Amino acid sequence: MNNGRSAYKHLSGQYLGLFEEKLKKICEEPNDSVPDRLRESMSYSLLAGGKRLRPLLCLAAAERSGVGPENAMPMAIALEFIHTASLIHDDLPCMDDDDLRRGAPTNHKVFGETIAVLAGDALLSWAFGYSLSHLRERGIPDDRVLRAVSILAEAAGPSGICGGQMLDTDPESRGEERDFVYQIAYYKTAVLIRAAVVSGAMLGDIPDSMLRCYYDYGTNLGIAFQIVDDILDVTSTREALGKTPRKDDAQNKRTFVSAYGLEEAKALAVRESEKAERALEPLFPEGDLLIDLARSLADRTN
Amino acid sequence: MNNGRSAYKHLSGQYLGLFEEKLKKICEEPNDSVPDRLRESMSYSLLAGGKRLRPLLCLAAAERSGVGPENAMPMAIALEFIHTASLIHDDLPCMDDDDLRRGAPTNHKVFGETIAVLAGDALLSWAFGYSLSHLRERGIPDDRVLRAVSILAEAAGPSGICGGQMLDTDPESRGEERDFVYQIAYYKTAVLIRAAVVSGAMLGDIPDSMLRCYYDYGTNLGIAFQIVDDILDVTSTREALGKTPRKDDAQNKRTFVSAYGLEEAKALAVRESEKAERALEPLFPEGDLLIDLARSLADRTN
Repeated sequence: MNNGRSAYKHLSGQYLGLFEEKLKKICEEPNDSVPDRLRESMSYSLLAGGKRLRPLLCLAAAERSGVGPENAMPMAIALEFIHTASLIHDDLPCMDDDDLRRGAPTNHKVFGETIAVLAGDALLSWAFGYSLSHLRERGIPDDRVLRAVSILAEAAGPSGICGGQMLDTDPESRGEERDFVYQIAYYKTAVLIRAAVVSGAMLGDIPDSMLRCYYDYGTNLGIAFQIVDDILDVTSTREALGKTPRKDDAQNKRTFVSAYGLEEAKALAVRESEKAERALEPLFPEGDLLIDLARSLADRTN
Repeated sequence: MNNGRSAYKHLSGQYLGLFEEKLKKICEEPNDSVPDRLRESMSYSLLAGGKRLRPLLCLAAAERSGVGPENAMPMAIALEFIHTASLIHDDLPCMDDDDLRRGAPTNHKVFGETIAVLAGDALLSWAFGYSLSHLRERGIPDDRVLRAVSILAEAAGPSGICGGQMLDTDPESRGEERDFVYQIAYYKTAVLIRAAVVSGAMLGDIPDSMLRCYYDYGTNLGIAFQIVDDILDVTSTREALGKTPRKDDAQNKRTFVSAYGLEEAKALAVRESEKAERALEPLFPEGDLLIDLARSLADRTN
């Protein structure tokens, strides 16, 4: 069994090379029916790095259902298309108005707002077209393709990341703070992370009772991931400035740290990670890398 | 057989009531998992009227393949979701910057840019989720659902309306004017109109040779539709001002009228409509409402 801290490293060691290779190939494939500037803009954001957590989770879950990474790859690619589309639109001036993402200029800073909006739209639609046609080609049965891509669509839509971004940006949609940060984390982060795990797992022939375990794992892992992200946002910024982490550091943005304070947020991260671990234990009583991954999340805040 | 001019009226008489009723019901269905303001914004644009040409074409083609409007309805709804999403985004300040659409304030004028971007994104994803799950429920076989929704995704993506809008708005993507207006009409309009016809037809059990007829019909009908739209844009505006139509009326926007002049554009509309009619004639040697519809398009410019 793997040590918690090395779980992501182990996961990426297994699948990241394959994934990046495929993504690069897709971005470089000549396609006369797509305008050059639109292709450049989509590729710029797709190839801008990132942990690729969603595709890696999808490939790992699929393999545990008996579907190898080659055959599950179209779903992993579609997940990254959707995640990238949401980042491009979230960065827009009318949203979070960010100039930098992962240290590089955001899409609209390089290509302008018009192209950034279109690149996000194009990636969103492409995600569905790509997964529907390529999963079929890899021999995944039609009913499983349909179910898996439906889950992806739900996660990307009004009850998923769009709803979450709405709550996060629209002052009129805000509720009581402590419930509210959970709601945002659920819609904006957990629903897509859960979709990654569940859509991967359901490509194989597994019963609904097992899918339910992946479903709960994905939800709790996603919430834990958002809490840890909020915590690192505060501690890493303040440490870089040589300051002690403070409760109100996140300013106007509502985060788990602003709602609960740093120590309570850390405790919540541990609680959600443990829930994720427990959800998968019935499937893997001897332990599993996905269980280690949940454990490693909470460790990151210490 | 129907007179050309009354073809749209006849088509809408058959399906529009059913379609509007279903769309209204979807917009009014309570859904706790979607933020209220996002629902309001999507419904505002979905219920803002329009000819509903794409859903009507889909329902008509489906019925000709033996699939009744009730069972084809989820595809018709998905087409309108995608069309509406593209209109909301096209109207944004960073795109065409339109304040009015069909005489009413555009989505971003009522709800702001942030919500307008999210409403478009949400409708796009919802289109795929809605059609995948509801077509299945209506008993359409999985393989047909997969193929039909793939066609929808392709039409909405980088090789479809996103690519077309890119060509239309990005000065660097522009080519020689006469080819260029055809390209824009193809990607921005014809691909989705063709998807409406083909995705409807393929819900039933029909051979690929017949689908090919619908495919060609949809392409030419879509091009004809755009030419007529460009012509009416000029003639109706200038007539309202009591002026004679003039070649350079469309100012900066590249249209069939600016590229070819009014008279040649009218001749092109007739040519494309006739191509559409001829494409369907092998399937309906005795005539059909869809053939009449193509004929009626060119008539509208006289």
